[in-house]
Amino acid sequence: MAAVRDSSFERQAPEADAEELARRHLVQPWPYAGSIGSEARGLIGSGDGIYVTDGEGRRLIDGPAGMWCVNAGHRREELAGVMYEQAMRLSYNTPWYTMNEPSAVLAERIAAHAPGDLSHVFFTTGGSSAVESALRFMQFYNNVRGWPEKKLLLSRGGAYHGSTYLSASLNGRPRDRDWMDVADGLVVKLSSPDPFRRPEGMTVEAFADQLVDEFAETVARIGADKIGAFVGEPVQASGGVIVPPPGYLPRIREICRDNDILYVSDEVVTGFGRLGEIFASQDVFGIDPDIITFAKGVTSGYFPLGGMLVSERLLADLRRSNHPDAMYAHGLTYTSHPVGCAVALANLDLLEGGILDHARAVAPYFQERLKTLEELPLVGEVRGVGLMACVECVADRESNDPLKLDYEVGKRIDAHCHSLGLLVRPLIHMCVMSPPLIISRSQIDDMVAILREGISRTMDDLATEGVWQG
Amino acid sequence: MAAVRDSSFERQAPEADAEELARRHLVQPWPYAGSIGSEARGLIGSGDGIYVTDGEGRRLIDGPAGMWCVNAGHRREELAGVMYEQAMRLSYNTPWYTMNEPSAVLAERIAAHAPGDLSHVFFTTGGSSAVESALRFMQFYNNVRGWPEKKLLLSRGGAYHGSTYLSASLNGRPRDRDWMDVADGLVVKLSSPDPFRRPEGMTVEAFADQLVDEFAETVARIGADKIGAFVGEPVQASGGVIVPPPGYLPRIREICRDNDILYVSDEVVTGFGRLGEIFASQDVFGIDPDIITFAKGVTSGYFPLGGMLVSERLLADLRRSNHPDAMYAHGLTYTSHPVGCAVALANLDLLEGGILDHARAVAPYFQERLKTLEELPLVGEVRGVGLMACVECVADRESNDPLKLDYEVGKRIDAHCHSLGLLVRPLIHMCVMSPPLIISRSQIDDMVAILREGISRTMDDLATEGVWQG
Repeated sequence: MAAVRDSSFERQAPEADAEELARRHLVQPWPYAGSIGSEARGLIGSGDGIYVTDGEGRRLIDGPAGMWCVNAGHRREELAGVMYEQAMRLSYNTPWYTMNEPSAVLAERIAAHAPGDLSHVFFTTGGSSAVESALRFMQFYNNVRGWPEKKLLLSRGGAYHGSTYLSASLNGRPRDRDWMDVADGLVVKLSSPDPFRRPEGMTVEAFADQLVDEFAETVARIGADKIGAFVGEPVQASGGVIVPPPGYLPRIREICRDNDILYVSDEVVTGFGRLGEIFASQDVFGIDPDIITFAKGVTSGYFPLGGMLVSERLLADLRRSNHPDAMYAHGLTYTSHPVGCAVALANLDLLEGGILDHARAVAPYFQERLKTLEELPLVGEVRGVGLMACVECVADRESNDPLKLDYEVGKRIDAHCHSLGLLVRPLIHMCVMSPPLIISRSQIDDMVAILREGISRTMDDLATEGVWQG
Repeated sequence: MAAVRDSSFERQAPEADAEELARRHLVQPWPYAGSIGSEARGLIGSGDGIYVTDGEGRRLIDGPAGMWCVNAGHRREELAGVMYEQAMRLSYNTPWYTMNEPSAVLAERIAAHAPGDLSHVFFTTGGSSAVESALRFMQFYNNVRGWPEKKLLLSRGGAYHGSTYLSASLNGRPRDRDWMDVADGLVVKLSSPDPFRRPEGMTVEAFADQLVDEFAETVARIGADKIGAFVGEPVQASGGVIVPPPGYLPRIREICRDNDILYVSDEVVTGFGRLGEIFASQDVFGIDPDIITFAKGVTSGYFPLGGMLVSERLLADLRRSNHPDAMYAHGLTYTSHPVGCAVALANLDLLEGGILDHARAVAPYFQERLKTLEELPLVGEVRGVGLMACVECVADRESNDPLKLDYEVGKRIDAHCHSLGLLVRPLIHMCVMSPPLIISRSQIDDMVAILREGISRTMDDLATEGVWQG
């Protein structure tokens, strides 16, 4: 125990111990069968601002902000202090038959930022449970309305919505599904709205038309009476920061409205400042969903909290239904956790107290600087919005074919960048950048300079190995 | 914001504000359609030791320890302090490609308490996600082994395993399922091992034989090649503290072993001290499962953390499989959260530093004192083990029929007890008692005295209303 309490990255070689313990006792997320339960990953010992420090004491820019979540930055006394205070006041109460003040106040503050009549919040412990809550709510809603057949879910290629059986069924990335079971029968998949991969010679406008046509035709073919909800990220995040074509999302929203299909906007990544707003659905993309799911940035990752924001109209439908005793038998032990909600309130103070303004102010610079990496011949596209971006590497810029480089070029870039002082989120042949929102212009310069050097070194390696010509 | 930071139960009427905010902005767990998004629940403002204080400043014994989770008690400086320290050191790191020391150390400490070869831990944010992880692990395991048809789940009436689509499919309490969709096709239900509801005139030994026969016959009928796992709580907790007949669990375990069916022991409630041990599977019930799921008590509810402990044998099977590149595409943003793991380490210090010993010492007194409530004619049975117990009310003691009192007699008892200084967990016609493990003998006396008075007043009410004769 003392080992942990007293540990810090300065201590003599603690990483050797932790790595050995991990190999002996830890199952890591997304392991390969060949190494499951026998691997250590790079040790991180501490964090401060936009930086983390690894097991060898090397300071690194936290390029992905943990996992798109450390929005307010590391080592925030304001958040750590509130955790302590609330844990000493009330560390837990059961939400089954009691409640606490922080959760009620937080629900109001979140609802104040929400579009349309999204007035109510149901709290969970993260994104997967937020999406589960939304999907189970739709099922309950349509059961109570007497439409038990109206349950199919529309999702898209490139989507990522979670890591439970039902939420994972929505995922559209092949690797996530190859060896896992999902509820395929409950989901209908549509195309990813990825302009970079649109048919050759097609304008972005025509591509948007094609996506909307596909959506409308799918609804017509299956029947709106069979479809419960569309679930979509405004920007497909771990699919590779796919920013959809202009106008596409509002047109999908209208088709949903016309067909009584719930529109679930998954803002687990885009919410709480990543795009400069608390929610991006309306403020960035002009849509008013029926349900918004959120997590990550709501506590800047300090505490597992997520939730769904749900429309007053849907709740009112339920309240005046013919089945007032029907029970939405859903809830987690940690729903409305008082400490999590108190941390989220303090985090909202930070976001509203300047971080959102800052994020909006530096976002153009962040995108502009990263865009210069398109000068490098390995880079097919740099795209993004707000403070999230993706550098996509291609085999050659004629074909934009990513497949020939499917030996995880992202991991190679990450390895070079790590030695230069930057943590990258490698995604096969892509690198995702989504730093803490407090990043300054000069820190953006540092980040882009390291990334440029890391990609250059990777190009050299690949050319030397003869697997890429540039 | 200031409203929350400065709030405390002494403040002038804060509960009115919070209640109004809750009605306007909060969806509570397990709501009825008729009141969804328009209800407030009893406000809890603070906690200390075994007590919580409600919105009116009334101190209450926390009978259910929150939700079977505040095992070390409220207002533990040791836990709040560690939350602060770890949040200041490292509040978050992505487990996808990095790791932290607290999670590796915690995995080792938990594994040291586990039976058999349960050597490895995968961390989640609570019980539902722990069970999801176990079920998805079994699916992955059997896919990699080339047995994609061996996936059915065996569960039991009275079971509760979670609130996600897949974990909820295991639940065996009728109300949990009436209006919710579940994956019925993946689950086969067996009888609850409830000795109180065994066939009239049957011995407990014969009842155990009957349960084991049912299990064996079900496996034979369906075919072991179709069954992936049995999932069971050692003691069915929210099913009403169902303590199974002696010998039943080990016999089920043997059938699973003989048929290559994974035995998943769900210790979300029973783990971390509730029965006086870190895990009850072997130390109390003599079984060595393939997987143990845990949550709640692991952090005493201060932080959302759960996980699954998995057998080294299963991991080794995967490592030497013919598909080393198969990916267990599963993991949560908050898997291995450094703050949660640090809190759990501090909590383990408390449990091992005296609380487990205390729990074992007072458990007989706790059960003995509660048992005296069987003197009351409304009480059909008081049963339990360790520091969990259930007081089950019956219409009359000849039939032991609970149904005639199905107008939530538990809620009536809870209301009386609340005014007398005790929070009860009402479950339809049952009251579950599972206080913080630090409860003293004299506090047990207080608790039982209040419960006795609450039940007596309820009997008076029911007799006055003419719905019960006693």
